[in-house]
Amino acid sequence: MLSANHFNALANIVGNENCYSDQAHRLAYAYDATRQSYAPDCVVFPRGEADIQAILRYANEHKIPVVPRGAGSGFTGGSLSVDGGIVLALEKHFNKILEVDMENLLARVQPAVINSHLQAAVEKIGLFYPPDPASMDYSTIGGNVAENAGGMRAAKYGITKNFILALRAVLPNGEIIRAGKKTIKDVAGYNIAGLLTASEGTLAVITEITLRLMPKPKFARTAMAIFPNVEAAMNATFHSFAAGVTPVAMEFLDNLTIRAVEATYKKGLPTDAGAILITETDGNVEEDLRWQLSELERVFLANDASGFYVAQTEEERSAIWFARRNASQSLKVYGPTKLNEDITVPRARLPELLRRINEIGAKHEHQIPCFGHTGDGNVHVNVMTNKEDAVRYHKAERAITEIFEAAIELEGTLSGEHGIGLSKAPFMKLAFSEGEMNLFRAIKSALDPNNILNPGKMGL
Amino acid sequence: MLSANHFNALANIVGNENCYSDQAHRLAYAYDATRQSYAPDCVVFPRGEADIQAILRYANEHKIPVVPRGAGSGFTGGSLSVDGGIVLALEKHFNKILEVDMENLLARVQPAVINSHLQAAVEKIGLFYPPDPASMDYSTIGGNVAENAGGMRAAKYGITKNFILALRAVLPNGEIIRAGKKTIKDVAGYNIAGLLTASEGTLAVITEITLRLMPKPKFARTAMAIFPNVEAAMNATFHSFAAGVTPVAMEFLDNLTIRAVEATYKKGLPTDAGAILITETDGNVEEDLRWQLSELERVFLANDASGFYVAQTEEERSAIWFARRNASQSLKVYGPTKLNEDITVPRARLPELLRRINEIGAKHEHQIPCFGHTGDGNVHVNVMTNKEDAVRYHKAERAITEIFEAAIELEGTLSGEHGIGLSKAPFMKLAFSEGEMNLFRAIKSALDPNNILNPGKMGL
Repeated sequence: MLSANHFNALANIVGNENCYSDQAHRLAYAYDATRQSYAPDCVVFPRGEADIQAILRYANEHKIPVVPRGAGSGFTGGSLSVDGGIVLALEKHFNKILEVDMENLLARVQPAVINSHLQAAVEKIGLFYPPDPASMDYSTIGGNVAENAGGMRAAKYGITKNFILALRAVLPNGEIIRAGKKTIKDVAGYNIAGLLTASEGTLAVITEITLRLMPKPKFARTAMAIFPNVEAAMNATFHSFAAGVTPVAMEFLDNLTIRAVEATYKKGLPTDAGAILITETDGNVEEDLRWQLSELERVFLANDASGFYVAQTEEERSAIWFARRNASQSLKVYGPTKLNEDITVPRARLPELLRRINEIGAKHEHQIPCFGHTGDGNVHVNVMTNKEDAVRYHKAERAITEIFEAAIELEGTLSGEHGIGLSKAPFMKLAFSEGEMNLFRAIKSALDPNNILNPGKMGL
Repeated sequence: MLSANHFNALANIVGNENCYSDQAHRLAYAYDATRQSYAPDCVVFPRGEADIQAILRYANEHKIPVVPRGAGSGFTGGSLSVDGGIVLALEKHFNKILEVDMENLLARVQPAVINSHLQAAVEKIGLFYPPDPASMDYSTIGGNVAENAGGMRAAKYGITKNFILALRAVLPNGEIIRAGKKTIKDVAGYNIAGLLTASEGTLAVITEITLRLMPKPKFARTAMAIFPNVEAAMNATFHSFAAGVTPVAMEFLDNLTIRAVEATYKKGLPTDAGAILITETDGNVEEDLRWQLSELERVFLANDASGFYVAQTEEERSAIWFARRNASQSLKVYGPTKLNEDITVPRARLPELLRRINEIGAKHEHQIPCFGHTGDGNVHVNVMTNKEDAVRYHKAERAITEIFEAAIELEGTLSGEHGIGLSKAPFMKLAFSEGEMNLFRAIKSALDPNNILNPGKMGL
């Protein structure tokens, strides 16, 4: 527990109206999307960089944990205050879009700006911020940077890191640093902006983010195809890219997911289909889109698709996307508890990965529906189980471990977009050697020698 | 000087045929493109990762400097062994393309593979590696990664870092680490691949690089326009991007450069033009290229271009590029010594930057021809002077300092693609605060506590 002295010192920094240790605040900031709960000792709302500097200096001197927090919507516990201490809640005073620069095609934002708010603001003036994590309506840009969030458009446009030009941040020692520039190119000094991206709040508190924008492409088209099995859909995916088409999104649903969506929403989906692929293409010239769609149709049909349906109206487009957008919540027909992992492998290894997941599910007697971003090799794997049934839950956990092992064996990664946080920390040793873990620890300790920033995360 | 004991220990590791301390080798590996010379004590050609591990462990124990070297073509002294020690020459045994994976669109290469060799190898099978530094016919991929090299195609495709999926490297302590994966997305652990990129050989010895490839676009077109002044050309540049066109390249020559090329090569260039813009567009569909070119024409003419010439044949295309490709060597008409810096500012600040450079040239009585990659705000600034004339040379150095100051004031960077190395080290304090420099030092010392790797670089 934080002593009254410490609490008063923090209240002196940010003012009483920005510093709380009451039960209501402590519980409200104890959760994230993992549904685990670790109450902080106090919740502080810094009003500006100077407050963050003072808080970090104080916390550093007294070795008090500090957990930076945006919307608390992470899937791996990155914003949980596992050792108590201070939750540094940025939502109240760090939620402004500071600048949208049409000439240089960039935006400068504070970390607690909601992703979809930024998207809407720039689209109003013809610009485009592509990264679109599923959480975009509530997750913050700061959180997106801390986890290096992906999204459906990553296949063509890349992920959060591909849009970060510059960061401002406060180090645990209270120093303000700027990293990167408003320029496409900058090779002066070490790539600190690159290092802080995906560092899950363990190295510095990010206070400002400069993001690259693009002009919004004029046209977009959505198409869908039905495949007899997962392998055919996966082959169609990587052959599409090899043919020179780079779709904005290439999303798939497997048979279990299709059946769950149909059972829940009755939309007339083909429940005997092995897989559905949904793809979106965009461009500034109609003929270019026509070419992309005709190439995709050719490749899909050559890979056993039973047809290729291009949405002709906005309504048809929504109808196609409905199944994908509602995939996650419909899966509860298979069990009350979902263990959801965002495995990523090189695109061409997807058929093998899904074959192995199928075997692992059979072996441990669990249904494991899969869907997600095949365009970049990123699959959301959902082991549907029941937390209340200890024997069954143990089998589900075994299945998860074996799925991680398979992903690593296929040259993939533990996480394509959710990060490591707390939930994947035990699996770090599957993916990294002791020398690599020591390197992570050396960097952590170079920036945060007293281990005050988001301690207990990433298996460090 | 390295003792005979040390030399023998190194020769024992790599074999006598891979270890030299004779004058010829020491001088041959003393230079880079800065024309400065620092002879190492010995030159070692490691045969594999195990040799590099053994050499680094030995050097670390005995605190002997180790300078990794590719082609020695850098512009800032990054591969100069300023403190003597060991030059670790990778050209002999680390020059193989290990894998080109058409299904996953990636290449795995050793660091001493020449950039243009990789380009040729992947283009033969319809793929494309966009980063094209001017040095591409002799610079190595390892050097490109160490400096995060740019090139003409950066405007559309980005720079080296945008293509790095994964690295293998040996740390100063001898540990082999892998960073990144063969996947587009990977958010497990700190972004070590990002940190090593542009670290100029000061943190680790890179032994293998996995690069993202693209399908080669089917069509490309080159166009040229003549502008009455530099401002008009700069405005045309950033308005083109804002209009939604992203040209592959957008290169400019100012009046001084045009006159130098014309004086040297007599190609009929308009010597009264304020600036020339050369642009290249590509795509998979003819109509898309037509649209891009028509938009560029519209924007260029609206910004006072006196015409817009699209090359109709390969010959015309070469003729247009001739002036740009020969700009650098023709500048010696203005003086025997060239101080060449690769300043980068946000695109829309280019007119102001070039105005200031003009003033600085007038003030210090030097001609400062400029050309380069306006598409990404990166200008090659050439202060033409005479090293033999001490008074005049001192003025040139003053001009360089003021140009750096102007770039930083305009939110730009010291270097867009050449790195810091030795030559820009004195200017680091213009661009970075003491807190930022301390952060760089903390990272350096976390990875290389005995400061054996490429010491004396980057102003650390």
